[in-house]
Amino acid sequence: MSRTKHMRIIPLGGLGEIGKNMTVFEIGTDALILDTGIMFPNNDMHGVDYIIPDFNYLLDRKDLKIHGILFTHGHEDHIGAVHHVVEKFPGVPLYATRLTAGLIELKLTDASIRDVNIKIIQAGNRFEIGPFKIEPFHMCHSIPDCLGFAFDTPFGLIVHTGDYKFDNTPVDGRRPDYARLASYGQRGVKLLMADSTNADREGWTPSESTIEPAFERVFKEAKGRILVATFASLISRIQQVASVAARTGRRMVINGHTMREYVKMARQMGYLDIPDNMVLDPGKIASVEPHKLVMMVTGSQGEPSAVLSKIATGRHRYLEVQAGDTIVLSSHPIPGNEESVYRTINRLIQRGAHVVYHPIEDVHVSGHASREEMRLMIHLTQPKWIMPVHGEVRHLRLHGRLAMEAGIPESNVIMVENGTVIEVDKHNIRKGERVPGGYVFVDGSGVGDIGRAVIHDREILARDGFFLVSVSVNRKTGEVVKGPEVISRGFVYLREADGLIEQVKDTVQQVLKHGHHHNGTRQNALEESISKLLYNETRRRPMVFSIINDV
Amino acid sequence: MSRTKHMRIIPLGGLGEIGKNMTVFEIGTDALILDTGIMFPNNDMHGVDYIIPDFNYLLDRKDLKIHGILFTHGHEDHIGAVHHVVEKFPGVPLYATRLTAGLIELKLTDASIRDVNIKIIQAGNRFEIGPFKIEPFHMCHSIPDCLGFAFDTPFGLIVHTGDYKFDNTPVDGRRPDYARLASYGQRGVKLLMADSTNADREGWTPSESTIEPAFERVFKEAKGRILVATFASLISRIQQVASVAARTGRRMVINGHTMREYVKMARQMGYLDIPDNMVLDPGKIASVEPHKLVMMVTGSQGEPSAVLSKIATGRHRYLEVQAGDTIVLSSHPIPGNEESVYRTINRLIQRGAHVVYHPIEDVHVSGHASREEMRLMIHLTQPKWIMPVHGEVRHLRLHGRLAMEAGIPESNVIMVENGTVIEVDKHNIRKGERVPGGYVFVDGSGVGDIGRAVIHDREILARDGFFLVSVSVNRKTGEVVKGPEVISRGFVYLREADGLIEQVKDTVQQVLKHGHHHNGTRQNALEESISKLLYNETRRRPMVFSIINDV
Repeated sequence: MSRTKHMRIIPLGGLGEIGKNMTVFEIGTDALILDTGIMFPNNDMHGVDYIIPDFNYLLDRKDLKIHGILFTHGHEDHIGAVHHVVEKFPGVPLYATRLTAGLIELKLTDASIRDVNIKIIQAGNRFEIGPFKIEPFHMCHSIPDCLGFAFDTPFGLIVHTGDYKFDNTPVDGRRPDYARLASYGQRGVKLLMADSTNADREGWTPSESTIEPAFERVFKEAKGRILVATFASLISRIQQVASVAARTGRRMVINGHTMREYVKMARQMGYLDIPDNMVLDPGKIASVEPHKLVMMVTGSQGEPSAVLSKIATGRHRYLEVQAGDTIVLSSHPIPGNEESVYRTINRLIQRGAHVVYHPIEDVHVSGHASREEMRLMIHLTQPKWIMPVHGEVRHLRLHGRLAMEAGIPESNVIMVENGTVIEVDKHNIRKGERVPGGYVFVDGSGVGDIGRAVIHDREILARDGFFLVSVSVNRKTGEVVKGPEVISRGFVYLREADGLIEQVKDTVQQVLKHGHHHNGTRQNALEESISKLLYNETRRRPMVFSIINDV
Repeated sequence: MSRTKHMRIIPLGGLGEIGKNMTVFEIGTDALILDTGIMFPNNDMHGVDYIIPDFNYLLDRKDLKIHGILFTHGHEDHIGAVHHVVEKFPGVPLYATRLTAGLIELKLTDASIRDVNIKIIQAGNRFEIGPFKIEPFHMCHSIPDCLGFAFDTPFGLIVHTGDYKFDNTPVDGRRPDYARLASYGQRGVKLLMADSTNADREGWTPSESTIEPAFERVFKEAKGRILVATFASLISRIQQVASVAARTGRRMVINGHTMREYVKMARQMGYLDIPDNMVLDPGKIASVEPHKLVMMVTGSQGEPSAVLSKIATGRHRYLEVQAGDTIVLSSHPIPGNEESVYRTINRLIQRGAHVVYHPIEDVHVSGHASREEMRLMIHLTQPKWIMPVHGEVRHLRLHGRLAMEAGIPESNVIMVENGTVIEVDKHNIRKGERVPGGYVFVDGSGVGDIGRAVIHDREILARDGFFLVSVSVNRKTGEVVKGPEVISRGFVYLREADGLIEQVKDTVQQVLKHGHHHNGTRQNALEESISKLLYNETRRRPMVFSIINDV
């Protein structure tokens, strides 16, 4: 047992959301990581593929012994960065439920990482790692085999909800473990770390099962094929579609690489109950009558490279909209994706499909608790302190206010940002130092090699493009002897800008004639004059470059 | 009277939405224009300031006599392109209500266009332009002095709703003219062109007045200053804030150039009732106690150059968040703006403000009819044909289905796209030819000088940047004698990419040595080799350029 007088909790990473993708728990020099997720970039983070937590803090703390990585559930924002973390901390064991472990293994295999030590854990089965006594408990969300964690520490009982909703009729029949949460409350919870995602929604999030009647209705009314778009990792949703398909006599086709992999794995493990004779190979679609078919596809967020977008723009290899097709988007647009989602819907309609989406039909529910559930969570666990996590600043703030209304004093509501160190001692909880808790861009094969500066350049290039002149001048007279040659993209349509190019040529000759002696000032003067000319003529500010060859 | 056998209706322009920004009505060679609005670009239309309808069709039809431009109301998406249109059709008179005319004049003055003939029209006052008999009727929306139009033509009565909602307790007290709509129904409406914006919302849109209690509550609870963000042209909303401010003893400050101009004009005309002693100059904010102040600001959509964003990022000249500030966003994010709106809210909270926005409080309602109102509109006017307008494809489709449920046969529901010509004769309505009905980008001072190609280049530059090498080679040996010099932006952080630059230099030398004779192929070979190298090393595809100087 460590003799340290307090433990530390540090939310790391996450874009916009706080305490979501990765959290560190430390007792002295012993540490645990909770989740290793990714986020998707904002619209103005040009060219970024995805974002991982900045865990340089952990790399710098050479004295820390990291005993393990715990996972709450198998969604991308909780497991998606696992290969990046495992690469840096080889040998650290992972702890996950069976389904979560299966999804993690798929991800590690894709990244060609082998021989990782994954230990299967189960809700209700207490275990110890180093000085940490851990009690995973079952929670409901939109994927099976979800966990929350209780940490029984020398400084008190700390409960982390993970992503959750109190779903009383979950798709897999496994109800929330109210009794265990209540037992924590009776033992005395020092700190509750709780999901804030829906802190702006009053009431109680509808159960996953409430959407089945809508699916039944859609399936019965559809005279042709049905396509259902959702996240590959929404395993519960895929089960629901399969169940309704079975009842309405449709065979099921799984499209998209990731969705096929996930479904295969979840079926093998028994988390998806789809009989073999219901599953149809994508190659055999033509052999089945349209009204006997339902196809799962990816792309419910309008992602251009996913199946649904390809169908909407006529770019899919073998799928195209047919008369009589019904297309269901079983999802909500993630903020920032509305434009591409609605554009995809419009295009599908224009191609002749009947498109069903929320709010036209209740074909999607959130996987996160609403305010009444948040109140219940507080009353069950009766925490002395609360730390809202999972959500943007605005959600955490609302969750904090709700906690105060529920009786927790303002001083015991801990509002953090990513990188805030929370110190928990026997008597108190307080904010400590700040450590780097931001995020790292992943672009192509580069991790962290583009930062704010490169993104800023991309922003300028996106807005106004660039303009480059290359010119050879007589070293002595300053007379232009060759060029100027112009290379420009993203600025104006050059072929229709003859007049402007002529003006640029005049400017180049004039500036170079007025002999500046140092190359630096001469180049600056040239670029400034060209910038000014372009702005005056077009009110745009492309990046301007020049190459001057003295001959 | 023209002896033509049919008239034509052509929705022009509009991005995403159909029949929204500009519509043409033709009887033979006589024509009228309805509205001349702008749209704002999608997130992937890099660098575009705004979008105007493509009205090249009108420029090409030299035989057409354009008798006038009618305006439904004073919002940007209906008047914003007026200067672009007036420039091309000088002398054509504009017809608008007093408030709309005032807003149009502000816009023309900004564009330095003078001596435009604006004729003031009034709801209920019938007038004729060329062969067109026009009956403007009063409608409710979120700005006063709104019109719908009935066109009494030889081919039947055509009713256009404009933007509307059936607001039974409007802010200015002027209720919808149900009687007139019903009288059209009794006379017999050939075609109803109706607003579809909220075709996915069941029920009845709440009245503008329903948000006043929420404002009262917020104003009474706020212990410090209040800032209210909304659109400058939401004149009714500004009136509501002023009324609540008067009742709660707060003085009002108007921030932002456009909002100040709009308010000044609307007050002069009597559309805004704000007593002089209530209005405070922005320079005198410090002289008034915080709880006696309410400030109107622009930027409710998170626009980076508006007041609210500047306050949120600490870039405003004289306004910053103070402890105790309450900031109200009286607006909904327009699809595509969610990310920047929520980011702005988060930043304001981080700076210490209490931020109030929908759905936390009902501080905004839509200005458009919901489905029950759409049904009422159909039953009042009893049209033989209906043409859903104002909305995306998905909204028009839903509105069309609603019309069928309300008894209009499918054959009489006209689904159009922008540029579809509708031919109306004595007996029938049918779709005719297609004319260009798209949109034109306005970027800086350029109108239409950037098109898809330039936007596509900007997209590539935004994603991966560009990479250019400039090199001087010995004309005879192919030996590199100077350089290669590299210019690159938006690709990688060059200072940390020494290894990559070395590899590029090697590649340049190798390619140039293997003597390609034609300059074209040599340059292509060089650029291809560099592209390949960069992709292999980084999995990114920047635009690659080369300049080869033979010396």
